[in-house]
Amino acid sequence: MFSPEPIGHIRSPYQNTQQVPKGLGAQHEAEGILDVLPQYEVGLTDIEGFSHLIVIWVFDRAGGFELLGTPPSDNRPHGVFATRSPRRPNPIGLTVVELIRREGSRLHVRGVDMLDGTPILDLKPYLSNIPAEKLRRGWLAEAEQRHKA
Amino acid sequence: MFSPEPIGHIRSPYQNTQQVPKGLGAQHEAEGILDVLPQYEVGLTDIEGFSHLIVIWVFDRAGGFELLGTPPSDNRPHGVFATRSPRRPNPIGLTVVELIRREGSRLHVRGVDMLDGTPILDLKPYLSNIPAEKLRRGWLAEAEQRHKA
Repeated sequence: MFSPEPIGHIRSPYQNTQQVPKGLGAQHEAEGILDVLPQYEVGLTDIEGFSHLIVIWVFDRAGGFELLGTPPSDNRPHGVFATRSPRRPNPIGLTVVELIRREGSRLHVRGVDMLDGTPILDLKPYLSNIPAEKLRRGWLAEAEQRHKA
Repeated sequence: MFSPEPIGHIRSPYQNTQQVPKGLGAQHEAEGILDVLPQYEVGLTDIEGFSHLIVIWVFDRAGGFELLGTPPSDNRPHGVFATRSPRRPNPIGLTVVELIRREGSRLHVRGVDMLDGTPILDLKPYLSNIPAEKLRRGWLAEAEQRHKA
């Protein structure tokens, strides 16, 4: 394996998890900054050509994990690997953000749902979608249907 | 930070990186198995409702990193965070696969591009696409245009 090291940190308006929009219909439109450490700035070369980035980060304020849990978007329990729960065996989070602009080693982005100060492990370009007609969203689609009914 | 531990391993037809399709137009249609460790099987509850999964895994056979590199899909160098290069500061890979079926703690999937035996760190449901009209793919779109011309 390997020893994870932050490549930077997230600047976000959220100081605690209660402030992060959650549950069905939650919108993630908050702006924030991916503050990459200066020694990695060269690794951002050409990143401004991509409209969206995949941010891989650490749930650094979550403790332990539970294999079965009830997410904010449903009142039924689901397996942790079928949810975005923070309480995972490896506390790794993933968010797709829109890149607004780059200032050196600082990336201004839209769509953050992480807490301020969250360590970033990796950034990758978002390259392609799954064809909409092929996408099924399991319990989440069912919970949305019940919510609408 | 945390100490990454495998939640399982990937069974793939690829024994070495030369066998993995790469470069422009590479198709990832290979079938494989996400072989989750039995102690985490409960965490897969309800995962079969999702058509696609995000697999987060370790480039366990890559050594070191380079901040600027020339990917197989282009003849020009780009920053590592604008590519899917295995030689990253944190050697974390990400692949979206199609879930074909589940057999207990084994998930049969399509679209693997990992080597056989690759450690899995996390699985997450693929929930939503970026609107196609909002997606820009930077140097990759440019390389494709040059390739077609």
